[in-house]
Amino acid sequence: MAAYLARVYVSLKPTVNDPQGNTIADGLRSLGFGEVGGVRAGKYIEVRLTAASAEEARGRIDAMCDKLLANPIIETYRFEVEDQPGG
Amino acid sequence: MAAYLARVYVSLKPTVNDPQGNTIADGLRSLGFGEVGGVRAGKYIEVRLTAASAEEARGRIDAMCDKLLANPIIETYRFEVEDQPGG
Repeated sequence: MAAYLARVYVSLKPTVNDPQGNTIADGLRSLGFGEVGGVRAGKYIEVRLTAASAEEARGRIDAMCDKLLANPIIETYRFEVEDQPGG
Repeated sequence: MAAYLARVYVSLKPTVNDPQGNTIADGLRSLGFGEVGGVRAGKYIEVRLTAASAEEARGRIDAMCDKLLANPIIETYRFEVEDQPGG
């Protein structure tokens, strides 16, 4: 078994309203960043796991996203898996 | 002025306790993902903005991170800026 680090990015689908992102955009503009056109807020999750191969790790992370990390009704996700030599 | 999309990743510093990440790790393990070693939860923020150049956009995003998007006491951030042809 080898150690892997997965970086998972979860975003709201483009059609879903994002009050948190709107609040961040308003805050940035009121701080003087008037060039901000829009903000979308999502989640960034790092998962450390062991697996027999990088391909197996990708399959397991995909299952974790479907079951817990993302809500497939309103969110999309993407991820990268990298080797972690030494765990 | 050109349009840019910045992808900002905000993480807790490694020494900072992360109860949200621990809860996600426990949830994954109880769903049958016993191979999970640890989880860190952070934020993923997309900012659309206009700037005279990609370099100027990077400088502005850096300032936004310092002032609002990240808490430098407990968080680190990194970002990428890409051109958005057509806005």
